[in-house]
Parts: sequence; C-alpha cells; structure tokens
Amino acid sequence: MKRVKIKAKGRVFEGVALPSDDNKLVLKLDSGYNAGFYDYEILEEKEVEMHEFVPQRFESRENLGTIKVISTGGTIASKVDYKTGAVTSQFSAEEIVADIPELLEIANIDAELLYNILSENMKPDYWVKLARRVHEAVRDGYDGVVVTHGTDTMHYSASALAFMLRTPVPVVFVGAQRSSDRPSSDAAMNMICSAHTALSDLGEVTIVMHGTTADEFCYIHRGVKARKNHTSRRDAFESVNYSPLGKVFPDGRIDWIAERFRRNERELELYDKFEEKVALIKYYPGLGPEILEFFHDRGYRGFVIEGTGLGHVSTDWVETVKRIAEDSVIVMTSQCLWGRVCDRVYDTGRYLLRAGVIEGEDMLPETALIKLMWLLGNFDVEDAKMLVKENIVGEINPMLGYEDLTI
Amino acid sequence: MKRVKIKAKGRVFEGVALPSDDNKLVLKLDSGYNAGFYDYEILEEKEVEMHEFVPQRFESRENLGTIKVISTGGTIASKVDYKTGAVTSQFSAEEIVADIPELLEIANIDAELLYNILSENMKPDYWVKLARRVHEAVRDGYDGVVVTHGTDTMHYSASALAFMLRTPVPVVFVGAQRSSDRPSSDAAMNMICSAHTALSDLGEVTIVMHGTTADEFCYIHRGVKARKNHTSRRDAFESVNYSPLGKVFPDGRIDWIAERFRRNERELELYDKFEEKVALIKYYPGLGPEILEFFHDRGYRGFVIEGTGLGHVSTDWVETVKRIAEDSVIVMTSQCLWGRVCDRVYDTGRYLLRAGVIEGEDMLPETALIKLMWLLGNFDVEDAKMLVKENIVGEINPMLGYEDLTI
Repeated sequence: MKRVKIKAKGRVFEGVALPSDDNKLVLKLDSGYNAGFYDYEILEEKEVEMHEFVPQRFESRENLGTIKVISTGGTIASKVDYKTGAVTSQFSAEEIVADIPELLEIANIDAELLYNILSENMKPDYWVKLARRVHEAVRDGYDGVVVTHGTDTMHYSASALAFMLRTPVPVVFVGAQRSSDRPSSDAAMNMICSAHTALSDLGEVTIVMHGTTADEFCYIHRGVKARKNHTSRRDAFESVNYSPLGKVFPDGRIDWIAERFRRNERELELYDKFEEKVALIKYYPGLGPEILEFFHDRGYRGFVIEGTGLGHVSTDWVETVKRIAEDSVIVMTSQCLWGRVCDRVYDTGRYLLRAGVIEGEDMLPETALIKLMWLLGNFDVEDAKMLVKENIVGEINPMLGYEDLTI
Repeated sequence: MKRVKIKAKGRVFEGVALPSDDNKLVLKLDSGYNAGFYDYEILEEKEVEMHEFVPQRFESRENLGTIKVISTGGTIASKVDYKTGAVTSQFSAEEIVADIPELLEIANIDAELLYNILSENMKPDYWVKLARRVHEAVRDGYDGVVVTHGTDTMHYSASALAFMLRTPVPVVFVGAQRSSDRPSSDAAMNMICSAHTALSDLGEVTIVMHGTTADEFCYIHRGVKARKNHTSRRDAFESVNYSPLGKVFPDGRIDWIAERFRRNERELELYDKFEEKVALIKYYPGLGPEILEFFHDRGYRGFVIEGTGLGHVSTDWVETVKRIAEDSVIVMTSQCLWGRVCDRVYDTGRYLLRAGVIEGEDMLPETALIKLMWLLGNFDVEDAKMLVKENIVGEINPMLGYEDLTI
C-alpha cells in the first residue's frame, strides 16, 4: 500500500491510500478519518507495509469460534459526507468490526479489506477473486466467513460464490441499507446476526439482512434464491420461490425454517472459472430479436431471456432464437419473478421449446444469468444446455411443480 | 371476414376464419366449435358479412347500465386442446359473455372481437388501434368499457391506454390465469367483477383480477401501478408503490381504498401517437454501455434503464450516458421494483445525474417505458425530458418521499 502526501483545497493531507472504485483518491488520514479527493496534487508517495489491514486479528478468546470478515465496500462500509450529503465507501473491514464491540463477544474475528467499491461497480472477475479469497479462508480453518458487500448487487455476488464454491461452513453476505453513522442504520444488527449465522450449523452461501423494518430479526436467505426487492427499506431482501432458510435474532437464537446444506455436508471445492459473455435480456412488447444477434455477433454463447408470464416472447423471435440456439444456450426465465416457467402450456412457449429454448424452471433471472456464466466457464455449450436445468446448489426448487403453484 | 372450406387430416371442414396471431388457421365451425389447423389445403373461400361478430348486442334491459366488451385474446378467450394439452386463443367476445349468464344481470353488454392473440404478441401499434376503439366506445356513450386481454403483457397495454386516453368512465382490463373450461378458472369471477367496476364511480384505466387465490374478491389496480408478479397464480397481479384502488366483490360491493380519478372527473381526450423506438435495458454486473449505442445507432432517442438499488449502473457507463443524453431521454428506474429511485445519495447516482440521467421516481420500469414511448410520440426530446418526471395520470406516487420509504 502507498503512503501519500497531497495538496488539495490549499491544504496538505497525508495518509494511506485506500482502494477506491473510481478516479477518486481516498486517504486514511493519521487522525483515523478517511477523506476522498478529486482535485489534488501529489507531493510525495512511498510504498508502506500495511500489515494492520490484511488481515487484522482482534484479541483472541479460546472459547469462541473464529470468523473471517472480508470487506468489499458498500453502504455498510460507508458514511455520510455531511458537506455534500452523499454516502461514500470509506470504512475498512476492521473499522466495521471495531465499531460494533458486541461482535467480539460472539466470535474471534480476523478482518480483511479486499475491495472498497459500491456494489453497482462489481464485475465478474471481482467475483472470482472474492471466491478465491473465501476459499483460502475456509481452507485455513475459519469456522465461517462474512463478506460485507453493497446491497445493490449482493444477490448477484452471492449467487456467483454459491456456484463457484462448495463450502462446508457458512459463507454469509451482509450489507446495510443505511450507513452506520445514521441513527436508523441497520449495519450493527445485520453484522451481529451475520456473525451468529457464520458460526451456525450451515454449509452454504447465504445473505443475512433485516427481516422486517424493525430491529427484530434477520432472515437467512439462500444466496441463489434471494433478491433486493426494495430500493431503500431495511428489509429489502426477500427469498423468491423458496422460504428463507431461517430467522436469526441478535441474541444468537436461530429458528431454522427450510431445508439447508448443513455444516460439513459438502467438501470444500472451488470452480473459479467464469464466462463473462452471457446476456440477460428483458423482453417487452416492441423489442425485436435483433438484440440476440447484437450479443451473438460479439461472441456471446449464453442468453437468459426475462420473458413474460410463463416464459414468452413474441412469436416473431422464433426464427432468430432457432438460429442462435444452434451454438448457444438460451434459457427462459420470467419477469414475473415469482412462479415457475412452463413453456408447454401455450403455443408460443411450444414454438420456443422447439426452437431450442430451455426452461429456467423457478430460477430468478439474475440467478440464471450467474449460473450460465459459471456453466459456460467450466463446460462446453452442449453440457451447459444439459446442466442448466439441473439443480446444482439449491437454485431450483423441485418441490413445487407448475400445477402446485397454480392452485 | 372469410368463409373457408378446407381439407385437413383427411376430412373436410368448413367455417368462418377467425383472427389468429400466427400461421395457424382458426375456423369457427358451423357446430359453434372453434378448431385450429396447421396443415390444410384450402378448397374454397368467400368473403362473408359477419355482423354477428362486430358488435354483438345482447337483449337490452332499461334499468341496467351498458358496457362495451372488447376482446383481444389471451387465456380468458382460450380453451385447452385436449389432444395436445396446449391452451389456445379461440373465443370471441360474445362467446365469453354468453358463457357467463350472470353478466347479463349486471349490465347490458355489447361485445366486439378486436384481436385474437396471446398477449406476448402485443405490439405498440395494436395499443393505438385499441385506444381508438375504446375512445369510440366512450364517445358513443357506453357507461364503461371492459377489455379482455392476455395477462402476460396486460399491464403494458393498460399503461399504454392510460397515457393515450383521458377517460371520464371506467376502462377495465381483465384476463384469466386459467382458461374458462377448467374447474379452477378465474375467468367468470374476474369478468363479473370487471362488469361491476365498469359501472362504478371511476374514471381511469384499471386492471381487475383475483385479489387472493380463493374466489373472494378482485382488486381494482391502477393500470400504471400494476404488474404481473407471478407466472401462474390467480392473484398474480399486484399494485406496486401504490395501493389497489379498491376491492370489488362478485355481488357488486366495492370497497374503495385509495385516491382515484372519479367518473366524469376528466373530459374524454385521445392522444394516440406512440414512438415505438424506446429501449428498456436491465443492467447487471458485466453489461457494458455499448448496448445504449446499439439502440441509439438504430434511431432510438428514448431509454429506460432498469438499474440496481436506488438507480445505479457501473460508473463505466457515465461517459456513454453523457454522450447519448445530448439528444435522447434516459430515464433511470430500479430493478428492485418497489421503492423510489434516488440518484442523489451515492456517488454513482450523482455522476449519472450530471451525465443527464433523469430519475424515474417510483415508476415501474414497464410504466416508464410506455410513458416514454407516449411522450416521444407527442413531444420533442426536450419537452419529454421535462414531462417524464411529471405525474400525468397517477403513474408517480408523490405521497411517499425517499425518506418516508426508508423508515
């Protein structure tokens, strides 16, 4: 890491440069305060060892389990800049932990800063690096891993890790809808519930966030079945087409609700290849099939269509779909989000099936996208066509058929 | 219309050709039964007057109001083909009405077949033709209009009519999730509730569908605030970011819930221009801004982005957004669906605002798409930029601010 001395706004500032996701320089000043700069002149910089950042180990207690906290940025690592009113990512992992002393009563915690970005800037290769870091932590014997993350794309990242990593211990994604310096912040309770979850009898990738707008409990969502369904409420995350796995209370009690992967049920494995060239296309009346060709011409061989209802697009699309399906995987999901795709009910769906479309069952469009990115990273097109319909990590809920859902 | 004699499957069939949305020939046979054919040979065809179809007036009763029913196809006009198991659109408007004798106790009904298509095949110019036909019906003095429609894109069509038509009387979209020849069909109750709604003290475009999975009541949704949120359940439609306007019971009782446009509150007006070249783009990690250029190069000047969270895309997009916003309208909505867009909270949003993005407030992405198609049909780009943030027909809920929503 670099220690930098700069001149900005007529003053001199000095501190350690933190990772930042744009052209802004973020300095951890010696006062402990983090500050962001756009217009500045560098006066001096030198490489320094920042062992305090990676990883930071808090005082250990023998009777407690040990958790690794990996910070990637987002609101949970943010505070309000009271000059501009904007919220920016500025806390490192150990600052998040240090800010919530209750955490140290729950577990021994090692904290590590991996990224410091707002989650809309997440990219597939960041997921790969994150998966590798979580894999290392599990291999190193941590009882659980907590990933702090911006909420915008947390469900995409959690899905990515769910496919890349078979984990024998809990991997918990957690974020906040309000930054931790605000009275209504959900950061502390979400972190506390995440720590409890990370030590629990669980062996899969989950999202832990407020279950209601009050500070009652958090839901433990299966990563591949969760979605951010509100722009700003603290209980924005919901499980879709599956129940939350459980409720976790700040005092550590967990009420398990649904079938889950248990601790040590699966061996640790990492499949960290990812094909970024997969398109998610939302259909609407008037959208022509040329959009498929736009991506196909650029080398895309994976397509997730967010169709209407049971999984439809205009019958105008059938010929193009047929041509592209020859060397590509085309998965149909529904913009309804809830319910199961079934292309055998209406003529349009039957034409699409004959043209080579594959039903995405009850997978969320976002989950199907990530799954197909992962499949095409690790398998050829023909195998991916077969595997995309298989339930690999709980992303397909086999318990409810089309008829069961239609009451 | 044409009367056709064909040979198919070794037999001769004769009947009137009904509108069909693909290469299938649908004949209304003299037996009254409708049949669809793919492989056939035409033996004879002649033009016939089919006054029985457009419009069909049922026996009139002086003490009842009068409703126009316009049929466009969909499941509500469908039955199961027990040979193939598929559901196809086969009923005309008067067949739907004749099948539900209770309707004739509620209102005098004139029925008309406009289209016979599954709603995934709806297109913007079909909306224009439909709006004109509804406008004529209101001008002709009907107390209300019911449009039967496939559920897949019913909320897009209802939004389109809401913007094109200022109506002093109820315009009710209704569909069914299960075809009317199935025991669990919702077609009859939805039609009955729609007829009651069409005679009520209401003056806007609505969607009336099952409120629960049981046959208890229907919700009256504001067209521009409704969405199909389940692939198959009978209560698939929900109001998003606004309450349903009311509950309507099969016996005619209506419990009004939310502020609505009343009967005769607005004068009848039709603005039937529509610009089809508007793109709806759902953002996901890894999607580059070239997608904006793809549409822009094809003459698109309207863009609705379905961003993450409060309304974000990767900061990689900012330069492209800025260039395209010079001669185009770019509206930001959220893939969260619930909640309000606010691009003033995080850095990314602020960059996007500076680049020319316009906040779509609490509008559904689908509604924002239709609104922008309508605005660019009737106004130039600069006026459309101003008007897209204005609440025109109830599509923006001004009552809940960002802070109110964040509890």
